[in-house]
Amino acid sequence: MHRSVFAALALSACAGATAQAQNVHVNPQNSFISQAVKVPAGSEMLYVSGITPDTVPGAPPATPFGDTKTQTLSVLNKIGAILTAQGYGFEDVVMMRVLLVGDPAKGGGMDFAGMMEGYNQVFGPLKNKPARITSQVAGLVRPGMYAEIEVQAAKKP
Amino acid sequence: MHRSVFAALALSACAGATAQAQNVHVNPQNSFISQAVKVPAGSEMLYVSGITPDTVPGAPPATPFGDTKTQTLSVLNKIGAILTAQGYGFEDVVMMRVLLVGDPAKGGGMDFAGMMEGYNQVFGPLKNKPARITSQVAGLVRPGMYAEIEVQAAKKP
Amino acid sequence: MHRSVFAALALSACAGATAQAQNVHVNPQNSFISQAVKVPAGSEMLYVSGITPDTVPGAPPATPFGDTKTQTLSVLNKIGAILTAQGYGFEDVVMMRVLLVGDPAKGGGMDFAGMMEGYNQVFGPLKNKPARITSQVAGLVRPGMYAEIEVQAAKKP
Repeated sequence: MHRSVFAALALSACAGATAQAQNVHVNPQNSFISQAVKVPAGSEMLYVSGITPDTVPGAPPATPFGDTKTQTLSVLNKIGAILTAQGYGFEDVVMMRVLLVGDPAKGGGMDFAGMMEGYNQVFGPLKNKPARITSQVAGLVRPGMYAEIEVQAAKKP
Repeated sequence: MHRSVFAALALSACAGATAQAQNVHVNPQNSFISQAVKVPAGSEMLYVSGITPDTVPGAPPATPFGDTKTQTLSVLNKIGAILTAQGYGFEDVVMMRVLLVGDPAKGGGMDFAGMMEGYNQVFGPLKNKPARITSQVAGLVRPGMYAEIEVQAAKKP
Repeated sequence: MHRSVFAALALSACAGATAQAQNVHVNPQNSFISQAVKVPAGSEMLYVSGITPDTVPGAPPATPFGDTKTQTLSVLNKIGAILTAQGYGFEDVVMMRVLLVGDPAKGGGMDFAGMMEGYNQVFGPLKNKPARITSQVAGLVRPGMYAEIEVQAAKKP
């Protein structure tokens, strides 16, 4: 691609002005999530819909999607495929919202520990952890669903 | 507006660097929502507060805001007005979070089907569907509210 | 830093193209929250994780984190510290999601009024109010937690 010296100067100035740095993961205690993630100006964003788990072949009728750990892994696997198809990876995830439903097998409360096992299997080895919020909601779209996750990812175009 | 040839070169280089493309709606199965929406670098974003429904004149005291479909349409109508006032339209919505409350008339579960009827009335005819997450929460700010929605929209400045 | 006149022209053109304006808070009724907040192109974004309250020294075992107002203030104080450390302030918050849990001392419903007292103590004096959504969820990560808040902030780089 041919550019004059003037255009080259222009492009250089633009790059400076729009600050094409990587996301900054604020995680001073090296925790399993970041306290915050800074997305630099000039980034592209990907908003992914809330993703629900797949059914488990042969699962008992009462728990068609498996337990919370199983569902978390199913959801993250599906999110990973969506990210990859759009040119993103798990390390580009800047925000994650985890919705859990109370598991009758865990006394009716959310199985936070089970979700963490699934989460850590995927995000544990990664350097860049997302910011995250987790809560127990009253219900998801189908009975037996204990986990749904939505993410936003960002990267340089 | 007068610009020198150098400024014209500069502007051209900037346009290339900031990639002023439209949002990309990832919806391979032509579903009622997008799997994901990509917001290109250089976009302007609009964060809209959670919007609650208006009361229905003459409604019974137990259901002052009507049923879930009615509330969904009320909320989307109000969101549409907010978007329009800021120069946006429903097709610019990139992410939507739908919070539903269990409807006693539906056995206490969320009326997902009712929400979908209202949603499809507005978004069904549109080419660009938002990414979305829907959950049943324990309560909204006033009794009888069954639906609250928040959206983010994005477009070229 | 040395720049030629051509680079100066280029930078000027870039500034025009990327519109480095401040966030626009749409709040026609001067309410305690904005109806919407517009984030101009060329902004940097900060995604903060859901922040939970600190325990209150000497609190009764049943309410280790205090009431909803106390928890809201604890959470906002912690969010303020995170924002400051990254070069942001409360006026840069564009979106806030407040998750409340029913307080047994308030009949089991969320203590919206208590949350508002804490919120107004911080945001009342500020000119720029965030967009916001508040809901009652079924549970947070630890018993006795009645409030968790996540925010996104945006500013010029």
